[in-house]
Amino acid sequence: MTGGGTPDGTGAARSVLGRALSVLGAFTDASPELALADIVTLTGLPPATAHRIVAELVAWGALERVGRGRYRIGLRLWRIGALAPAARTLREAALAPMQDLAAVTGHVVHLVVLDGFRALFVERLPGREDLTVRSRVGRDMPLHASGPGKVLLAHAPTAFVEQVITRGLPRLASGTITDPGTLRAALAEIRRTGHCLSREEMTEGASSIAAPVVGADGTVVAALGVVVPASAALPPYVPAVMVAAATASRNLGARPPSR
Amino acid sequence: MTGGGTPDGTGAARSVLGRALSVLGAFTDASPELALADIVTLTGLPPATAHRIVAELVAWGALERVGRGRYRIGLRLWRIGALAPAARTLREAALAPMQDLAAVTGHVVHLVVLDGFRALFVERLPGREDLTVRSRVGRDMPLHASGPGKVLLAHAPTAFVEQVITRGLPRLASGTITDPGTLRAALAEIRRTGHCLSREEMTEGASSIAAPVVGADGTVVAALGVVVPASAALPPYVPAVMVAAATASRNLGARPPSR
Repeated sequence: MTGGGTPDGTGAARSVLGRALSVLGAFTDASPELALADIVTLTGLPPATAHRIVAELVAWGALERVGRGRYRIGLRLWRIGALAPAARTLREAALAPMQDLAAVTGHVVHLVVLDGFRALFVERLPGREDLTVRSRVGRDMPLHASGPGKVLLAHAPTAFVEQVITRGLPRLASGTITDPGTLRAALAEIRRTGHCLSREEMTEGASSIAAPVVGADGTVVAALGVVVPASAALPPYVPAVMVAAATASRNLGARPPSR
Repeated sequence: MTGGGTPDGTGAARSVLGRALSVLGAFTDASPELALADIVTLTGLPPATAHRIVAELVAWGALERVGRGRYRIGLRLWRIGALAPAARTLREAALAPMQDLAAVTGHVVHLVVLDGFRALFVERLPGREDLTVRSRVGRDMPLHASGPGKVLLAHAPTAFVEQVITRGLPRLASGTITDPGTLRAALAEIRRTGHCLSREEMTEGASSIAAPVVGADGTVVAALGVVVPASAALPPYVPAVMVAAATASRNLGARPPSR
């Protein structure tokens, strides 16, 4: 489907759309607002081309012009993006139990899905003492170095897990699992117990408790987790997290857990 | 910026991008999943062109292929859409007080912004008895027929309000304000009191209490509201809604209210 130019001259069409998508792709969590010069640098497009594409994206509502020749993602693109199942079906199923979990624990609650070889935050509810958790909706993190990430990995195909291991298990904090054998054992334990405890694997001073969210077809579609201070005892949080994840799963149409 | 074809042949380029955007625009809240035939019908594009554009959007991650030749919005477009300020800055500033308001009242809480001549839900937290409120993030509603909508209208320029009135004030429920003079008086009252009470204006059996969220520059950027059963007394909710909206405003960098 992504083949090269075609004999009927559609190569040119593909290229124009590709250039427009590269303009949208230049906007990231680290640079949500860009000047035209930034867009030219990031996309490698000629300035006149970049200007023309930006103008059309603004006219349509995919981009908004801020002051002084700067641009950001527009409300119309947000509305269309909000139609993605992760934002719509999954988030709607998980939001009420996430709210309850945040209210009961007072800590940050995350909903995380697999996105390529990364774990992507699709929802985040703030805790009462929101000091150390710098997560944000739309941001991603490594799969091996957090509770929700390991839950997703534990329910991924073995070949995928081995690819993640081959790509490297960098240390992010004192508790990060960097040894392949230790990671494989941890994933087996997650499958056995139905939850994951993670102690200072991503951020120093923060630990997490996570459990899988299961879709109507019985596959794991997301992980739901709470972030607590590293000084806290983690096991008391396990039943609450598992109940919240089970509620989200049931809201998605999954059958109640049999364990 | 949205002018026609240019002498250097960019008219063709503009048209290709326009066609791709029309494919994205075919996905709506009412039809979040489309077959290629639907896309052809909705966009008026030739099937071969639609197929080529869809293939490129899938390859990039703007669309995802579901089973049996159906498509939906992809995770990559959701991630980029989530960079829009309404989803990012505003939502992050408002989420904690919205959570508190939902927890204290037990009712559905909304965050709403102006989008053209409509009020757009950018966030929605479920209540404990979530029976009658069919709102959804990304969905819109008329400005004149709800608490948050009237709050946004009350702080819009007079000329804009008159345009809304000229476009018509259709009745949606028994309490909808359909008379221009009554609406103008209601908006003046909202500006005077700093909040809005709305009784069965959008949905029979549901009332709402709403207040403005103010940005760092002192302008109203959103409305925050709670939906309660029509049988409830509304005034007791007013201080809680105003506190939540003021907290969101302060989080955005607004100065504390002086009233």
